[in-house]
Amino acid sequence: MNTQAFSADQLASGIARGDFTAGEVVAAYIKRIEDTEAKVNAFTTRCFDRALQEAQAIDGRRAQGEPLPPLAGVPYAVKNLFDIKGVVTFAGSKVNQANPPAQADAFLVQRLQAAGAVLMGGLNMDEFAYGFTTENSHYGPSHNPHNLACIAGGSSGGSGAAVAARQVSLSLGSDTNGSIRVPASLCGVWGLKPTFGRLSRRGSYPFVHSIDHLGPFADSLSGLALAYDALQSPDHLDPGCHARRIEPVSTALTAGLQGLRIGILDGYFHENASASALQAVEAAARALGVTAHVTWPDAALARAAAFIVTASEGGQLHLDHLRTQAQDLEPLSVDRFMAGALQPAAWYVQAQRFRRVYRDRVNKLFENWDVLLAPATPVTAPAIGTEWLSLNNQQLPSRAAMGILTQPISFAGCPVLVSPLWPEAAGSMPLGVQVIAAPWREELAFRVAHVLETSGVAHLNPVEF
Amino acid sequence: MNTQAFSADQLASGIARGDFTAGEVVAAYIKRIEDTEAKVNAFTTRCFDRALQEAQAIDGRRAQGEPLPPLAGVPYAVKNLFDIKGVVTFAGSKVNQANPPAQADAFLVQRLQAAGAVLMGGLNMDEFAYGFTTENSHYGPSHNPHNLACIAGGSSGGSGAAVAARQVSLSLGSDTNGSIRVPASLCGVWGLKPTFGRLSRRGSYPFVHSIDHLGPFADSLSGLALAYDALQSPDHLDPGCHARRIEPVSTALTAGLQGLRIGILDGYFHENASASALQAVEAAARALGVTAHVTWPDAALARAAAFIVTASEGGQLHLDHLRTQAQDLEPLSVDRFMAGALQPAAWYVQAQRFRRVYRDRVNKLFENWDVLLAPATPVTAPAIGTEWLSLNNQQLPSRAAMGILTQPISFAGCPVLVSPLWPEAAGSMPLGVQVIAAPWREELAFRVAHVLETSGVAHLNPVEF
Repeated sequence: MNTQAFSADQLASGIARGDFTAGEVVAAYIKRIEDTEAKVNAFTTRCFDRALQEAQAIDGRRAQGEPLPPLAGVPYAVKNLFDIKGVVTFAGSKVNQANPPAQADAFLVQRLQAAGAVLMGGLNMDEFAYGFTTENSHYGPSHNPHNLACIAGGSSGGSGAAVAARQVSLSLGSDTNGSIRVPASLCGVWGLKPTFGRLSRRGSYPFVHSIDHLGPFADSLSGLALAYDALQSPDHLDPGCHARRIEPVSTALTAGLQGLRIGILDGYFHENASASALQAVEAAARALGVTAHVTWPDAALARAAAFIVTASEGGQLHLDHLRTQAQDLEPLSVDRFMAGALQPAAWYVQAQRFRRVYRDRVNKLFENWDVLLAPATPVTAPAIGTEWLSLNNQQLPSRAAMGILTQPISFAGCPVLVSPLWPEAAGSMPLGVQVIAAPWREELAFRVAHVLETSGVAHLNPVEF
Repeated sequence: MNTQAFSADQLASGIARGDFTAGEVVAAYIKRIEDTEAKVNAFTTRCFDRALQEAQAIDGRRAQGEPLPPLAGVPYAVKNLFDIKGVVTFAGSKVNQANPPAQADAFLVQRLQAAGAVLMGGLNMDEFAYGFTTENSHYGPSHNPHNLACIAGGSSGGSGAAVAARQVSLSLGSDTNGSIRVPASLCGVWGLKPTFGRLSRRGSYPFVHSIDHLGPFADSLSGLALAYDALQSPDHLDPGCHARRIEPVSTALTAGLQGLRIGILDGYFHENASASALQAVEAAARALGVTAHVTWPDAALARAAAFIVTASEGGQLHLDHLRTQAQDLEPLSVDRFMAGALQPAAWYVQAQRFRRVYRDRVNKLFENWDVLLAPATPVTAPAIGTEWLSLNNQQLPSRAAMGILTQPISFAGCPVLVSPLWPEAAGSMPLGVQVIAAPWREELAFRVAHVLETSGVAHLNPVEF
């Protein structure tokens, strides 16, 4: 079975129909992982015994004539900040290796298991989710499946690369400033950062309490919708989960564009984009018949404030590590953590105060628009080790610049669906488009992304190995 | 007319009945202010023209046979951080004198006006509400009407002193760490710090966004209830106002104690209390027939965290003043503001994280209790200028120590009704008892306070001038 030939929704329906068994599917994906991991380095933990047991259980249920849940038999893996029962939650770090194994699966892992999906393992990431490149010094960098010399993006780099390499059909990641959207863009897969507060974070290793989001990656839009619907659930045990009900998108995908006011973000989102990034958005806009340009308020200020909040909360969270084990932390981020912990409190307070005003302005913008488009990354994946980026006559630090177009959006809490595009100027490399909706309106982003998929501009491409 | 002879509710009903006119009442209170202000120094702004006009309007409405609103003709004044249309909002500072006059009344002033109360002026306070003593270097200290050599408490010192001296029948103050409860205790008047988020703060000068509360003082419990009911209103223009409906207490006052589980706070609230403070609580407990002792969780930690949050947010708010006009700020607080602004962000983040856990613990406590009792201040009013306090073999900085028993409660957001008691050990000086309820359960505190009033242990005492 060629894992590049089937998407998540096709696997689920094929197993439900009996075209193949869950056992066959999982065996094929295990083989795919074993054949390709030396190149990709997406996994830090494999749980194939569990996967085979879960597959067997699915096949047993089918044999009994039970109706199967929507993702029955679909292989997935999770950024290694999600708890997997019996496995140590690294969160990309070395210091966490001394922790005891998790006593239970994270809430979202439980949700996917309940939907029948099969867990294959834990995925590589930037240490403590602080980075946009997954150049992890402890576990090695994850490689971009479309050019192994390039980064996969981060911090959920393993989650993007594993789906792009078709090692799994779905994955979970986290996104504070762009950590789902950047690897989805650079690896050419579908990715969703839902509304802030939509999905429970219980059982995941935190980074920035007041900005952390969790969400899925998938190899098709229908698969992304099935995964997101399975993940949705109020969770009164997570005070950060503000969803009061499940609002399914799988059934709303095909509602079309009628009545939707769609615009293209200009200004900041144009100035900080390469020719490839602009081409990606233009292709998407053309497919949607969209020409209106819209200015997002205070994007640069929001990015600065997001940096301050991130560094302060992240620094506070890791104060003990900084005090006693700084030599064991990621060299690429330890200085930023220290600086963050020591920033004046007044900066943090001001950043959070600004955020309230900013969210009001963004919500106001969505009174006139339903969906807005922007590139997800300023460029396609740079080579691993790249320090500087030249963009429209500016020299930017390459690693931080990967999030320049995502940070302002997450700071407002809006849901963003990254659609994989393949602009001509980028050769064979992907570059994603952010399909942005007002908070709690994920379904609008799905409706727009569905047109991008059916028009053919957004899709996965096969990899060469 | 002797202003010491009537309480707020008696004034309102007397005017409604025609025992006296609003004009007579307001004239008597104006005279009282003019006769006593040299001793008390409660007022920084007088608006007697407005007061006389408002009184005339009330009398005109009565002459027309209109039914009068519940506080018609009752004189009140407000801490000078509430906007009064046409008056500069000092917030106790010198630097604000350069600001333009307020263009509208604060939301709560509008509410009291709608209820017929008559505004007499603005009241003295610690600069920017940062203090527990109202030893204001710019406007002079407010004096305790029961011993003019002593502090009135703070930061709403003018609000407590003006009611105790019967210059007004009601007043408004603000309470971040105890700024309503401390002056209510030290001046011997009724005071309410409602649930955090209950009353709109629109049109008031802020201090600590995440802890600031506004609330009333009164010369009788019925007057306090009428004022609180008049102040209640959802306000969608204040994102910090979380009240969704008005929950009147005036009609619930006499419901009695049946079914209420009432306890006395021990531990921290016992160890940090003088003999007078313990006597006050014992007298209240005796009147209520209460003997159970209850331990409040993490009181000392909560006070430390409240200090950090206060200093950080206050420091951020006044960063520009600190940079450019530090020499014009209150000498007693300028260093604390500077230190607060420069604290490491990690401290602030940790304090706010602790607060979430702490609130859960406090809410858990209220699953087993309805109302809890504690002293409002560790001692009766110290002499103006007191630097150090000796309390149970500890030497404490006197000014900060005034809030030692109030800070942990407000950090959890609970409503507290301070009842004025007169413990024998304190000679002729008052000391208030905090009647504490779970968040959003103000009515329970009012029911308990009503028994304290009817049993005779809690009441105002006349002043000697």
